[in-house]
Amino acid sequence: MKSFVLAFAGFTLLLPAVVPTVQAQQNLNPIRAYREAHEAPIINELVALLAIPNVASDKVNIRKNAAKIMAMMQQRGITTKLLEGNGPPVVFGEVKTPGATRTIALYAHYDGQAVDPSKWADAPFTPTLRDQPLDAGGKAIPFPKAGEKFNPEWRIYARSASDDKSPIVAMMIALDALKAANISLSCNLKFLFEGEEEAGSTHLEELVTRHKELLKADVWLCADGPVHQTRKQLLYFGVRGVVTMTMTVYGANRGLHSGHYGNWSPNPAMRLAKLLASMKDDNGRVLVAGFYDDVVPLGVEEKKALQAMPHTDAELMREYGLAAVDGAGRTLAELINEPSLNLDGIRSEYVGSESRTIIPAEATATLDLRLVKGIDPRKQVERVIAHIKKQGYFVTTSEPDQATRLKYPLIARLNSGDGYPAVRTPMNLPIAQKLIAAVEKAMGYKPVLAPTLGGSVPLYIIERATNAPQIGLPTVNHDNNQHSANENLRLQNFWDGIEIFAEVMAMRW
Amino acid sequence: MKSFVLAFAGFTLLLPAVVPTVQAQQNLNPIRAYREAHEAPIINELVALLAIPNVASDKVNIRKNAAKIMAMMQQRGITTKLLEGNGPPVVFGEVKTPGATRTIALYAHYDGQAVDPSKWADAPFTPTLRDQPLDAGGKAIPFPKAGEKFNPEWRIYARSASDDKSPIVAMMIALDALKAANISLSCNLKFLFEGEEEAGSTHLEELVTRHKELLKADVWLCADGPVHQTRKQLLYFGVRGVVTMTMTVYGANRGLHSGHYGNWSPNPAMRLAKLLASMKDDNGRVLVAGFYDDVVPLGVEEKKALQAMPHTDAELMREYGLAAVDGAGRTLAELINEPSLNLDGIRSEYVGSESRTIIPAEATATLDLRLVKGIDPRKQVERVIAHIKKQGYFVTTSEPDQATRLKYPLIARLNSGDGYPAVRTPMNLPIAQKLIAAVEKAMGYKPVLAPTLGGSVPLYIIERATNAPQIGLPTVNHDNNQHSANENLRLQNFWDGIEIFAEVMAMRW
Repeated sequence: MKSFVLAFAGFTLLLPAVVPTVQAQQNLNPIRAYREAHEAPIINELVALLAIPNVASDKVNIRKNAAKIMAMMQQRGITTKLLEGNGPPVVFGEVKTPGATRTIALYAHYDGQAVDPSKWADAPFTPTLRDQPLDAGGKAIPFPKAGEKFNPEWRIYARSASDDKSPIVAMMIALDALKAANISLSCNLKFLFEGEEEAGSTHLEELVTRHKELLKADVWLCADGPVHQTRKQLLYFGVRGVVTMTMTVYGANRGLHSGHYGNWSPNPAMRLAKLLASMKDDNGRVLVAGFYDDVVPLGVEEKKALQAMPHTDAELMREYGLAAVDGAGRTLAELINEPSLNLDGIRSEYVGSESRTIIPAEATATLDLRLVKGIDPRKQVERVIAHIKKQGYFVTTSEPDQATRLKYPLIARLNSGDGYPAVRTPMNLPIAQKLIAAVEKAMGYKPVLAPTLGGSVPLYIIERATNAPQIGLPTVNHDNNQHSANENLRLQNFWDGIEIFAEVMAMRW
Repeated sequence: MKSFVLAFAGFTLLLPAVVPTVQAQQNLNPIRAYREAHEAPIINELVALLAIPNVASDKVNIRKNAAKIMAMMQQRGITTKLLEGNGPPVVFGEVKTPGATRTIALYAHYDGQAVDPSKWADAPFTPTLRDQPLDAGGKAIPFPKAGEKFNPEWRIYARSASDDKSPIVAMMIALDALKAANISLSCNLKFLFEGEEEAGSTHLEELVTRHKELLKADVWLCADGPVHQTRKQLLYFGVRGVVTMTMTVYGANRGLHSGHYGNWSPNPAMRLAKLLASMKDDNGRVLVAGFYDDVVPLGVEEKKALQAMPHTDAELMREYGLAAVDGAGRTLAELINEPSLNLDGIRSEYVGSESRTIIPAEATATLDLRLVKGIDPRKQVERVIAHIKKQGYFVTTSEPDQATRLKYPLIARLNSGDGYPAVRTPMNLPIAQKLIAAVEKAMGYKPVLAPTLGGSVPLYIIERATNAPQIGLPTVNHDNNQHSANENLRLQNFWDGIEIFAEVMAMRW
């Protein structure tokens, strides 16, 4: 495996460039050569997968995704198995390598976030190639035919182009390229592709616990999330947990004419505004009592890694059009190691030309609470509930009836998901150090090491069932509009992903 | 005209009953006799008008409404004219009475508030008869055939059943009934039926000014708004003005993943919550500087009337399911004589099962400001803008570009309508006293006299152009769900309206 070198060819338009290594310019890399010779069919395979709608609640289409991925794996000689529970199926796959002593397991998810097509430039499940990012004026262009080249700065726009279908395809192409180059695997491989990560992985725990023997591995590598904002390769050793809460506050039991009842009948949208405003200060610090309790502090290695991370806050502010940010001067990297309270959305009646001059009957907000190592999801929700009660609210989990309305001046209906806790793998584990060294050697530079990824992946489920360390190995661009409209994948990231997975599959573990 | 007596036959299910007069039980009233003999065709005419969709922006249907009303008027021998400008047409009508020295003008509007059919029990433009109010479990029942009786507590559900088509039909039936009873008119009549009142009467001023000679009258009676919550007949001598504002606040220039950027990228929904929360105290008192300035105080007559008004606040709280109200203990009737700031709606991304774990890119709220005598709409908007600036915001009227975003930490986009001011006619005018006395005599009890109606009607336009006093003569039930889903008309109110308009047309002015 030492015969080929994985080089980082990424560069960036907006952020400080990574200097390409000499190796990258020499192109002695058989994996890259394979990709360069097969770009159109590789992209075709990705496009075919992206064209299948993949919202977890869409039961028919989610199974089509699973079937497609099974077929893709079988085509590469992977032994597959569909793990069935009460949710979308988990696609499991296994490659046994004669003589291998290590088992490396790879995780990704094939479902995607819900879509609001009205906000997309292209239909979210009609993959579209653009010559630049949309916000830089990128134009839709036809997909090149077999034999034609792709510009690595082109982007494919589609739901899950980045989060999280392209890593699955990159793993398949890595196997093709290794085979074509006659490079043998160094380890046993296991694959687990989940179908409801964006819907909270509700049914994963039962499945993983039931199949925990099948899922035994020396390390689990999670191919979810983006690389660093500098476009440098990133390894993350933890993920935040998450739990969501939806709260509704009430006014009169029907919408009332604002002229006849304004100044008198309480306005629930205004009440909700006051309630939410009480939860954070102007720097974004959460004012809920106990919100920052129970956090397990970072270790020495993790603190060093945090300090060594590139600080791109100023560039990100320029990119995102922000004149100021929350956090009272602390960096994004630091702030990600703290729990957060985020307002996902707020709704009460209509605005603008659709608005009517009424006092709304109710107002609803959904929050997500991100959790770090040590915080129990249920306990964090209870802290928020205690805060709401402290503001004078009667808290219930169901729609208040007339008697309840007449009894309590302030009523909040609160419903929360189960959520899941954070995970953090110590960076000083031998297998972690091995992976870091391998990636550094392959890239020609030190990868960015993050103690905690900002996003949430239910690594705790696999950690709890398999007792194996969890490390994140993301491949997609940071500016992929993940979870929003116009999600996209920068092709260079996809090409890099293929080379990285090939390295992991063939390196000496 | 003294030969027949208008008696109040209203009663109420939820509120203190009005004792019917002896006359009501004797039924010596030829107008009532006419109605009782023709209930089915009368309702048919109303239903046919309600079936035509009437949102002012629906240009095709709004003209169908105007044409239908023109035809209804012509059928009664009213000379009609369509006043055309740049908005929906105004339907004008005139009846000249030989020897009459007074001209009484009647205003109503034929357009209605926008509808969200998903919130209606019945399609909003398919009038549906129900045997009780919906919230008391009312069932849909077939419309009786000719000759069959209608229970006066039945209700018709449809957009504009109350606001404001049924008064137009009641005026027409009043003319039919007077003719059938051989009672001659005592005055000249003018009718003005507007088609964009719910859309802000944007084009009315130009039309009314252009036709001000045509619109000359001794008094204008405005048949809009509901009767008192006790179901007692009401006269109002003023209306609040109104102006709406829509404000959008911004975060990053795109939605960002709440895991990767939470704690760092500001959340515009939270910012908007804080901004709105700064505008009112917990009692609903507006905290915007100068908001209560310029108000012309009530006169002696008006203060007496206010004190004499029935106080139904406790009953209304029970009806609307409110354990507490805004206003620090002051009554609804008092509070209506003050300006108000109401949150019509608030929107940022999605909530509940539709929500996604992102930091929204923007958040929008629409407010309506109700104005009382003395407050200039533009000046009131400027006060709110000054308040927003005081919270640190850069205020603009257009979508901020990247340079603007990078310059100002807090940006609010603000767009407001022109709005219009309040009107208040002094109660001690002779013609006002004459109307009060006539209604008192007809009803057998003192009508409720309100210095100011809570709702807004652009009476100022007609007042300014014609220099004639404006008095409100509403007929519909207070619990009509005006401006919301499931708007309805209680039949007894419609029957009463016919008798009231007949009295006005035949009384000695």
